[in-house]
Amino acid sequence: MAVYTQVSAEAAQALLKHYDVGRLIALKGIAEGVENSNYLLETDQARFILTLYENRVDPADLPYFHAMLAHLHSAGARVPRFIEDREGEWLQDVAGRKACLIEFLAGVSVSAPDGAIAHKVGEALGKMHSALSGFAESRPNPLGLKAWRPFFARCDELATEALFPGLTARIASELEYLETHWPDDLPQSAIHADLFPDNVLILDGEVTGLIDFYFACTDARAYDLAVTHSAWAFSGDGSQYYDEIGNALVQGYGERVALSAEECAAIPILARGACLRFLLTRLYDWINTPAGALVSRKDPLAFLRRLDHYSANGLAV
Amino acid sequence: MAVYTQVSAEAAQALLKHYDVGRLIALKGIAEGVENSNYLLETDQARFILTLYENRVDPADLPYFHAMLAHLHSAGARVPRFIEDREGEWLQDVAGRKACLIEFLAGVSVSAPDGAIAHKVGEALGKMHSALSGFAESRPNPLGLKAWRPFFARCDELATEALFPGLTARIASELEYLETHWPDDLPQSAIHADLFPDNVLILDGEVTGLIDFYFACTDARAYDLAVTHSAWAFSGDGSQYYDEIGNALVQGYGERVALSAEECAAIPILARGACLRFLLTRLYDWINTPAGALVSRKDPLAFLRRLDHYSANGLAV
Repeated sequence: MAVYTQVSAEAAQALLKHYDVGRLIALKGIAEGVENSNYLLETDQARFILTLYENRVDPADLPYFHAMLAHLHSAGARVPRFIEDREGEWLQDVAGRKACLIEFLAGVSVSAPDGAIAHKVGEALGKMHSALSGFAESRPNPLGLKAWRPFFARCDELATEALFPGLTARIASELEYLETHWPDDLPQSAIHADLFPDNVLILDGEVTGLIDFYFACTDARAYDLAVTHSAWAFSGDGSQYYDEIGNALVQGYGERVALSAEECAAIPILARGACLRFLLTRLYDWINTPAGALVSRKDPLAFLRRLDHYSANGLAV
Repeated sequence: MAVYTQVSAEAAQALLKHYDVGRLIALKGIAEGVENSNYLLETDQARFILTLYENRVDPADLPYFHAMLAHLHSAGARVPRFIEDREGEWLQDVAGRKACLIEFLAGVSVSAPDGAIAHKVGEALGKMHSALSGFAESRPNPLGLKAWRPFFARCDELATEALFPGLTARIASELEYLETHWPDDLPQSAIHADLFPDNVLILDGEVTGLIDFYFACTDARAYDLAVTHSAWAFSGDGSQYYDEIGNALVQGYGERVALSAEECAAIPILARGACLRFLLTRLYDWINTPAGALVSRKDPLAFLRRLDHYSANGLAV
């Protein structure tokens, strides 16, 4: 959510020499996405996002993201393509970083979705999974079930308890429960794995884009629905569950992808897993981000509360 | 250079209800300007900058900036206007902050200007001063000569010496020199007072906009030229003076505003004053910004080196 690497107008102009997309007329650093540097780059022909990859994205993963987005785009899904230059190259070097020029999509992220929007988002997720049925490439989920225990081990126990007394034991028991009961035979797909409201662009009540695919990976497609459910169907702090939103999401998804009985039965545990994934990554960032830093730390407890909700109430699908 | 206050799409849409500028299609936080929160707000009709005022800009000063920009715009200068809503109101409340919707100007800031660009920038500054001749409002320069001594007193001496041994004595003697010799009878005007390359938009070798007027004030117009000279005619670290740039700037300015003999004679001391102003504010920020913070601290010594240059070589105009 910051600009880590400065890109000069001259560097952007040099990059554009490889493309036939017009001449530079504006370049603004934007605060968006995971820990990359992002610029809104405007030419006299079109607008683009110029992304420079910093710490969190491994350039070795970029071909996977590129292939997934190209596949989705060919299938008619509204996702931002990586733009290829005259030589067909989409991976560039800008200001000492690996960088991509990416299609700009209009639309805004909503903060307070209603049932109608949630239905459209569920549909968009289902359409995306359908479109990916022929997509052959794979990438293990680096933040999937197997990653949670080592991740938890890296969270300082004192700091964890200081944030919320009893949290260590709560996570440990949840982890054990999930490791014991996690389903491993559900239909898999390339999934988004991070479809928060931030990552969905909306215009006039229609989804105009799914963005920020840098957590995309191969995993159970119902897990993607569970992540999306946990991200959309609660108040920001997780204290309030909105069943209208949650139901609309699942219904919209179901109109595009028929969930099997096994998937329906697994959804509650998948939702608990989604909560633990975000609880753990937020906890780690919380502990390891200096309090004075300008980067905003997201509250881990917002996902502890969601976990409490799913543990107590399940999730009927 | 960050987004301090989050503006939701819903809040932007509520703001736009007061205007006849179309419906929201994109909203991106941008890293730009002094310590305000800035968004690129796009409607189906036009693009705007939405600025929320944070610490450094006193809302009480906004009417002055608004009047100056409106005056300049009426005179045909390329500056961003504050957009008025249907009731003629340009000052709004957004997300708990005073905020303005501001005209978006195309153009990019150059990092490595050449003489031709510098000539245009000098001309643009001169045109701006000419256009302001009939502008009656005034605002004392909060970072002018009288402010430097109290500002210096707020810079911790140990930290100053740690940055550069001998800096305290150097600043003290420069301050005494400037207080003794500062000219107080030069032609005054509303001035920009911060016309760094960041604040000049350029397209195809033409100046398309002067932006970021939040240091604008009433002061000697030759001081504005001196600030601009110190900002443009050196390498970023101040170690190298580019006389082609410096000369072109002054020449371009002179084609629009005839400098008096007194102004020409005063330019060297005004340039030293400009250096001390940025040296002091950068020094203060350097000392008082936590090293771990993501906000980038600008090197104070880049202006000590410029000061050394002007002290040794003067500035022939």
